[in-house]
Parts: sequence; structure tokens; C-alpha cells
Amino acid sequence: MSSGGIGRTRAERVVLCTPDDPLILESGAELSPVEVAYETYGRLDPERSNVVFVCHALTGDAHAAGHHGNRERRGWWDNLIGPGRPIDTERLFVICPNLLGGCQGTTGPSSTDPGTGGPYGLRFPLFTVRDLVSVHRRLLRALGVDRVHTAIGGSLGGMQALQWALDHPEQVERAVLVCASAKLSAQNIAFSAVARAAITSDPDFGGGDYPGTGRGPERGLAVARMTAHITYLSEESMRRKFDRARRAPGAPMTFADDFEVEHYLDHQGQSFLRRFDALTYLYLSRTMDYFDPFADPALDLSDITTRFLLVSFDTDWRFGSAHSAEIAGRLAGAGIDVEHVEVRSPWGHDSFLLEIPEYHRVVAGFVADSNDRAYAEPMWPPRRNHR
Amino acid sequence: MSSGGIGRTRAERVVLCTPDDPLILESGAELSPVEVAYETYGRLDPERSNVVFVCHALTGDAHAAGHHGNRERRGWWDNLIGPGRPIDTERLFVICPNLLGGCQGTTGPSSTDPGTGGPYGLRFPLFTVRDLVSVHRRLLRALGVDRVHTAIGGSLGGMQALQWALDHPEQVERAVLVCASAKLSAQNIAFSAVARAAITSDPDFGGGDYPGTGRGPERGLAVARMTAHITYLSEESMRRKFDRARRAPGAPMTFADDFEVEHYLDHQGQSFLRRFDALTYLYLSRTMDYFDPFADPALDLSDITTRFLLVSFDTDWRFGSAHSAEIAGRLAGAGIDVEHVEVRSPWGHDSFLLEIPEYHRVVAGFVADSNDRAYAEPMWPPRRNHR
Repeated sequence: MSSGGIGRTRAERVVLCTPDDPLILESGAELSPVEVAYETYGRLDPERSNVVFVCHALTGDAHAAGHHGNRERRGWWDNLIGPGRPIDTERLFVICPNLLGGCQGTTGPSSTDPGTGGPYGLRFPLFTVRDLVSVHRRLLRALGVDRVHTAIGGSLGGMQALQWALDHPEQVERAVLVCASAKLSAQNIAFSAVARAAITSDPDFGGGDYPGTGRGPERGLAVARMTAHITYLSEESMRRKFDRARRAPGAPMTFADDFEVEHYLDHQGQSFLRRFDALTYLYLSRTMDYFDPFADPALDLSDITTRFLLVSFDTDWRFGSAHSAEIAGRLAGAGIDVEHVEVRSPWGHDSFLLEIPEYHRVVAGFVADSNDRAYAEPMWPPRRNHR
Repeated sequence: MSSGGIGRTRAERVVLCTPDDPLILESGAELSPVEVAYETYGRLDPERSNVVFVCHALTGDAHAAGHHGNRERRGWWDNLIGPGRPIDTERLFVICPNLLGGCQGTTGPSSTDPGTGGPYGLRFPLFTVRDLVSVHRRLLRALGVDRVHTAIGGSLGGMQALQWALDHPEQVERAVLVCASAKLSAQNIAFSAVARAAITSDPDFGGGDYPGTGRGPERGLAVARMTAHITYLSEESMRRKFDRARRAPGAPMTFADDFEVEHYLDHQGQSFLRRFDALTYLYLSRTMDYFDPFADPALDLSDITTRFLLVSFDTDWRFGSAHSAEIAGRLAGAGIDVEHVEVRSPWGHDSFLLEIPEYHRVVAGFVADSNDRAYAEPMWPPRRNHR
């Protein structure tokens, strides 16, 4: 059982916010109903003290582990979560919801606006990472849980864990931020902007009112996904996977897909269309652009008891080690318990989804409920792991 | 006069290939007529020995220096070319043509196909860097010049200078390759592929038959240009120029352009539409993808007398120093006279268009007609310039 991972799972759905008790966003906008889809793995212990809350990234969903019938198609973090795995479901109870604004069961811009009876489209309010956390907290309350053993996420997921711990440290014992960022760089925002331009300039975007029409900005969303994929892989990773290999070496030049990297990107773009919604892409990417918690004038780092683990990857050029180092520096400077580990991996930002032994060992050690913390080396400056 | 640069210039046009004497491409395809637009600066000396041939990059044109009436809008390499400038037009005669496949006066895919009377569109044959050089050689012949003092270009321009010198070293005394590449990496090709996908998936691309319809793939071309611009700037450069500055700090979140980097990219995308054609973008980017001269089994490096200068920039992540170092290593390994200088500049690939003193000093020294070459330090390994 330990090696087989989690078996069949399915998403639960719960309505968290109603007209009587709407979600009030940071902007002041109110939203109801808010339905949330989530999955759970493992068993909640009687003390309700073993909850690991998984926050997904830009294009993730609630299906983090196990399978929905086809054992070959497993959740996006299946290698990390399961019996005997770093997040060990024989001991821990894992909750993973689809984010606010999502397109896999949680209320988002393609959901029905009760005010009009049609889809929200661009009338859905913009929201912040703090708003994502508000919904996580509502979900916990609905499940009767006060406090999480660990909040964990990669990329945008790590941003949520960070915001949560900064705002409600009493609720988050441990926060694991994998290749996260406390603020996007100009280059990061530029890539977001290009992706959104590709989507919104597609005539089938129709000003955001495409849901329900049977059409959608598929060309634009595919281009956005292709561009994003370049940033998820390192140059080295692309060289190893594809280099300049052609499907038909020696054949005449063509505009059709010829180089293997073209086939790969095209496949990534097309397969994305089957599972993702362009409006969700717009909203969540915009949420990331504006994230900048350390610029919040109301930020108070004086009583943060959360223990932080930051993991970054040396070839990640989306949210590389400098992003994690900046977070670690801010936290350590305020006397907060933080460890930053830079793991060597040739695979760039995508590494957070991969089974990289050193990365998994560090996460496993951190979430292990040991008081002696013997696994931990000095926390700052970042420790480089040589594999 | 020395500080003012070149005055007013205009493009000449010449028909180089006719049905009786067509351009025969490397693929075997024949093309005629081929008209070429070009500009010249300075005076051809009586021995016809002072020609500097400028090869432009992906989105360049024949207007390298001087102005066309508006003194504020000068040619793309005006800071390099002119009286008293590194390519000194008081001594040198500069020729800069628009490339085959171009959209600024030279025959390309938006030109009229004499076989149909309509625009070529995607019926224009694909062509190689060697084909670009064939047209350069035809132009020289038409101008009565046998041999160039220097062939120079940045990016795709450097590729042309390289191919030319490898194939016809007797015709090229000196070759200056600025941030060039002997072959695109998988990541380079990936960015090309995304740009082309944005263009061809635009419904107004119309299978390439948009010329003359009054419509064109403007949305796709703008997205392509925005994406490319990210690769032309370094992350450091974007941070310095824009960081996270907003046009309206403190205003509510919006999907409209807000961060300065968004305004910049949007402006770059839109202004590009006024001067460039999407089909040219497709063709020239595809020419770059396939360029790989050192893989040519017929390549013979044994009698190459051309002297090479390679300049790269330390923050260039499109064709960074590793690309130039690979070329330099190949040439030096065959005993060819090559110098590679890595210039420090925070501005990434765009540096080749900027007035960077060390870069200009090195180019000026190399094209100076001195036999003692006192300016040159040992040629290999690359010399790092600290400014």
C-alpha cells in the first residue's frame, strides 16, 4: 500500500458563502454564493491537529492526489502526497480545494452570476491572494478545523501559504513555500501581460462573455499556455528534452511543426484547452501580478509563530532562488523561524511538480512531527543541496 | 559634422533577379523578380575596397543610419554608423539592404507573385540564411563591388555575416558578428514558435492571404512582438526600467494596463504594426530556426582568411555569450583568426542597438584599417570588458 499511492478520490462540493453571509473581498466587493470543490486524503485525527492544507498554483485544481478512475492519470502532486510519501496520508489529513476564481468546481468568472442569471465573465470581481486565503479559512471552518499543521503550495500556492501565515500565524503551524515569490518581477508581469493579451485579443473572447456560447478564446489560451510553458522549463531542461531534434530530419523546411520542441508546445497548448478556462487564467494571473505582501503598510511581523520552509530550484527562472531568498530574508530579519533550501534540479520551475529526492526529503523532514527538528541545518543563509 | 551623424538618406531600389536570371534558392525554388531596397552612406573609394556591408536583424530594414526627413527618427544603427562613428563614413562606404523576404522595399511574401498577379502569401518559398547572402552578393555585383572590407550584423545579421564568410571567405575581409548564434537553442525555437502561433492563429491572418485585403493579423503580430520584446531585454534591464511601478499607484486592481511594463509592451506591440508585416516575421523567424551552418556536411573551414570579431553581452539571454563562444570555438579550432569580446551591459540582447562605449570601441578598432592590429588582445578565450 505504501508504494501505490492514494486510490480513487473524488471532489466534494460545499457552498461556503450565501447572500446572508457573503464573501467580502479585500476590494469591498461581495460575492455569493461561493461554492468550493475540494478533495481530501487520509483521516482527520480526533484532535483535528493533522491537517495539511494544499494550495494549488495558477493552473492547478483540487485533484492533487489519487485518481478519478484512470490509474494512469493521477493528481498533480500525487508523488508528494500519499501513504509513505513526504506528505504521509497514513498520518496526515490533506485538504486541497480548487481556488476562488477557478474553473474546476469552485465559483469563478465562468460561474453563473445570480444577479443576471448568466455567467459573470469580466463582471466577476478582481480578487487578491488574501481573498483566496479567506475562502480557505471558510472551508476549514466548515470542516470544523481551527488550525492547520501545515499550509503548503508551489508558485501561486506558496504565495497563499505566505499570506495566510502573515495574516493568521496562529492558524498555520508550518508553511511550506515551494518556488514562491513575494512579488513578481517586471519580467514576470510581462509574461503575464502577454498571456492575457493573447487571450483577450482572440475574437472568440467576446469581451469575456463567451461562457455558454459554445465558443471560447481557444487560440489565445493555447498561445498563453505555450508561452507560459517556456517559463516553466529551464533552458537546460529544454536542451535535454528537445535540443534541435526534428520529427523528420532532412525533410524540407516547413512552417508546420517540425522541431520536437514545437510538437511539445503545441501539444501543451491544445491539451490545456480541454481542462482549463481562459477567464480563470486571466483572474488568477492578475491576482499574482498584484501580490506584494511585504509592501502592506499594516504588516506586522512581530508575533509570527509559524515555522517556514522555503524550497527553490537553482534553474528556475520564473520564481528562482532570489525570490525565495527575499522572502527568507524578510522573515529571518523579523526573527521568524525560516529555513530556505535551494535544491539543484535541471528542470526549472516545473521541478516543484517532480519527484526530486532532495526536495521531497526536505519537505518530508519539515512536516514530520518531530520536536527535535534534527533534520534541520542552520536556517539562513540558504543551504545548497548537492545531489 | 562629426557629431551630427548622417543627414537625410533615402532607399534606392534595384531589380536584381529577372525571369531570365532568377534567384535560385537553396531549396531549388526559383524566384523572380527580386527587387532590393538599400541605403548607402559615405563614398565608395576608387579601389572599391572600403565597403562595409550591414546585414539587418529580424525586424530591421535598410534604413540603418541618417533620417528620412524627421531628424528625431534616425536609422536603427545610427549611433554606430556615421562620420567619426565606429563605422566611420568619412572613410568607409556602407551598404545596407532590406533582406529577402522583407517588407520595406525588398521582395517578400507580401509582394506580388507574377504567376498569379496577387500577393505571394504563404506561396512564397521558404529560404535560408545562405539565400539571404546570395541576394547580398547579387546586390554587390550590381554595384560593381567584388569584395567587402567588413560584413557586419547583429543577431540574424551576424548569422548572415557568418554564413557569408564561411561560404565565400575571399569576398569578406572582416566579419563582425554581434550577439549572433550559429544555431538556435530549443528555448530560442520555442519563442519563435509561440510568436508564429500568435500570428497564424489570428483569424485575420486568413491563411496568409491577407495582403491587399485591408485587414491583417494585427492582434497576433502585436502579441508576437510583445513576447519577443521580453527576450530582447534582460531581467535586470526590465527591473531598472520598470520594476513594479504603476501608472496609478494605489488605484484599484484592473485588467487594463496598469504596471509600467504593461504600458511599455503594449506600446511596442502597437507601434510595430505600423512598420512591419506579419508574413515577413514568419519567414525570417523560420529562417533563423533552421540556421545551423556547422552541421553542414560540406563545410570546409580549411581556407578561411576572413578575420572575425564576435561581440556578445553578458546579460543577453536570447543569444548570450555561450552562442558566440561556440562560434568562436569552432573557428579558432580550425585556425581561423577570431576574437570574441564579451561586453558587460545590463540591457540584454537589445545592447547591440545601444551606444555602449566598450562595444563601440571594440568594433571601431576592428574595422579600423590598421595592419598592426595593436588594439587587439589575445583572441581566445573571450575577453571580458569591465566598464
